[in-house]
Amino acid sequence: MKVEIICIGDELLIGQTINTNVSWIGFEFMNYGVKVNFSSVIKDSRADIIYSLDVAINRSDLVIITGGLGPTKDDITKNVLSEYFNSELQINKDVLKRVKEYFDKRKLKILDVNINQALVPKGSTVLMNDLGTAPGMWFDIKDKVVISLPGVPYEMKEIMKKQVFPLLKNKFKFQSLFQRTILFQGVGESYIANIIDDLEKIMLAKNINFAYLPSNSIVRLRLSAKDNIVNKELIDSIILKIKKRFPFNFFGEDDDTLSDIVGRLLIDKKNTIGAVESCTGGGFSKEIVRISGSSQYFKGSIICYSNLIKMNLLDIQKLDLDTYGAVSDIVVKKMAINGRKKLGVDYCISLSGIAGPRGGNKEKPVGLVWIGIAGPKRVRVKRFLFSDNRERNIQKSIFSALNLLRCELLDINTEKK
Amino acid sequence: MKVEIICIGDELLIGQTINTNVSWIGFEFMNYGVKVNFSSVIKDSRADIIYSLDVAINRSDLVIITGGLGPTKDDITKNVLSEYFNSELQINKDVLKRVKEYFDKRKLKILDVNINQALVPKGSTVLMNDLGTAPGMWFDIKDKVVISLPGVPYEMKEIMKKQVFPLLKNKFKFQSLFQRTILFQGVGESYIANIIDDLEKIMLAKNINFAYLPSNSIVRLRLSAKDNIVNKELIDSIILKIKKRFPFNFFGEDDDTLSDIVGRLLIDKKNTIGAVESCTGGGFSKEIVRISGSSQYFKGSIICYSNLIKMNLLDIQKLDLDTYGAVSDIVVKKMAINGRKKLGVDYCISLSGIAGPRGGNKEKPVGLVWIGIAGPKRVRVKRFLFSDNRERNIQKSIFSALNLLRCELLDINTEKK
Repeated sequence: MKVEIICIGDELLIGQTINTNVSWIGFEFMNYGVKVNFSSVIKDSRADIIYSLDVAINRSDLVIITGGLGPTKDDITKNVLSEYFNSELQINKDVLKRVKEYFDKRKLKILDVNINQALVPKGSTVLMNDLGTAPGMWFDIKDKVVISLPGVPYEMKEIMKKQVFPLLKNKFKFQSLFQRTILFQGVGESYIANIIDDLEKIMLAKNINFAYLPSNSIVRLRLSAKDNIVNKELIDSIILKIKKRFPFNFFGEDDDTLSDIVGRLLIDKKNTIGAVESCTGGGFSKEIVRISGSSQYFKGSIICYSNLIKMNLLDIQKLDLDTYGAVSDIVVKKMAINGRKKLGVDYCISLSGIAGPRGGNKEKPVGLVWIGIAGPKRVRVKRFLFSDNRERNIQKSIFSALNLLRCELLDINTEKK
Repeated sequence: MKVEIICIGDELLIGQTINTNVSWIGFEFMNYGVKVNFSSVIKDSRADIIYSLDVAINRSDLVIITGGLGPTKDDITKNVLSEYFNSELQINKDVLKRVKEYFDKRKLKILDVNINQALVPKGSTVLMNDLGTAPGMWFDIKDKVVISLPGVPYEMKEIMKKQVFPLLKNKFKFQSLFQRTILFQGVGESYIANIIDDLEKIMLAKNINFAYLPSNSIVRLRLSAKDNIVNKELIDSIILKIKKRFPFNFFGEDDDTLSDIVGRLLIDKKNTIGAVESCTGGGFSKEIVRISGSSQYFKGSIICYSNLIKMNLLDIQKLDLDTYGAVSDIVVKKMAINGRKKLGVDYCISLSGIAGPRGGNKEKPVGLVWIGIAGPKRVRVKRFLFSDNRERNIQKSIFSALNLLRCELLDINTEKK
């Protein structure tokens, strides 16, 4: 079954609105094991709508159109559909009743353009819009289906959930899909692919689909296949093998975030944390407080961007700063130890590095970051060398520190390859 | 001139990634008065890529392809393009050098899949990727152009800005457009529209295009028209009027950010800053250190998420916390004053609020935030009431604090309407 989405609206093409309808519809279809095959965005133009309909109906079984159903002059989708399917517009009584109620309820005067919203092409099935005034429409074209929906996301979603999916499940026999998405921190997609080359070959041979989705120091790897017990067990066993090969980098699944995982571990262990941040300037702590309820374990931090603050608030010795520099294992270790005392927490994370783009030298290049953790059992420091981009160096430092903390809380050795 | 975008990647169709590339590219083309006509999203599938290229090259003058250039097996764009344009892949020395440097610099072992990134179809022009390893490619097809770029947004944007737009301006004769984009903080799009209703009418009458682009507490308003002296003077005079009506909210133009502006002001005045953050958990400071060179004025911060840290590190009295609460004008004022002393800075910003979604009550609802500034001349506090969304409340607090600091440095009265 081939599904295609056509989004109509100038605003999507000139950068005024980010198109979120496609990803929402695509995600919902995956619940039924159906992949959206194509999506396109076109202007509110008669010729473009007709051209796209020709292409879409030719190559797809189901075409979902969003947008261009509003009451204003630039919204022409309904008229073009009426012309395209050669079925004249006529007033639908249920929709007219709905539109009148909508305006009565809000004590607004109903205009002709609003009454026109009750016009629908003869022969189409009306999909009532409980949250707005423009109805959706369902067209049966031989064994294919074309559906037109409003572009406003919450109206579109409501009609899809309440009316379109139940009708589609009936009409097309949706096949179920089994899928899991696993998450890695601090390792690139090509490095992972190299380490699991043998498993990739098995997946290719056994029709298990896999896709890498890298973004900013996190890589997502999705495995999916037809939903049956053989595939399910194969995917589960492959994931178990991958997990063993990446004890430090493999941190979770699906919608997990490092802040979530670390937060749950800290609540379980009844431990508290704080941080001493230099190069990340508060970014580590900000990532921690993204989680509602983080006040249970996060107590506070000291951001010591200048050496004077390192000395005054954290008792770092001037001699150490002069001898080893602020970006050094010795200073980062002391930042963690002293921060733990000053903040009165169980675990204190410390970060110091050269975010760039300036400030590096041969011995200490841009991208060099030291991260320390002082905890009840031990103090550890780890050296990282990231890129030459300031923003990404800061982001990678934050995620690396979160992952180090996760490993420390789980007693995972981060030194082993 | 017809421009079309093809985005390649399963992740965009199954809802794992929201496609932001199209809106960015669409927005950038508007700088040259060019509207994107079509965009489509397709899977990493040979047949679909070929089909879409057929359709796109038939109806458009310029086709921009993003995605599918990674080193892993699911990325097939380059091979399909080589097949489609009947030009074999060959190693490009410059790209190979770049890839090798990239891995050497990071002390990573270079793999065969990485060396393959240096393969490009014969006859295509290479667009070097300074931020990644997959190069872009430019194909001249008679008088039409097909460009293939990586899908990672920051890599794509860098190649577009530095290489593609300059080449396109040369090849296609872009009509000149005069435009200015002005920036507002802390005020909504419909509120602005209401205040400048008279100016909008003038713009409509005089063919000055205007578009609002709201995002997370910042609204961008772009004014554009054919590039001539009359339009230029009209746009300049309208912007001057708008600026006068929004002395607090109007903060800059084009690519200005509040952190940039505040940073430049602090350097000019040779002043230093620090912060005392509660509800924002380090987010204000992180926004400050986004700017390279911020160590000239930013010294450090204390993140006092718990009351104990407010007492221990900032000498906030237990009696004040018990009497007024941590989210109160009195406590926020003392946080700013005491933070200024502890951090030894000229200006100290303090923030305390209820980010939510829990923790609010009738008297102090979710979204209530107090922001204070202690400076050489005075101490001020201001009350804000945001929404019920934690993430947006934190973001709005950060930007509001930056804008308050900007106004304080410029002696702008923030109390007046």
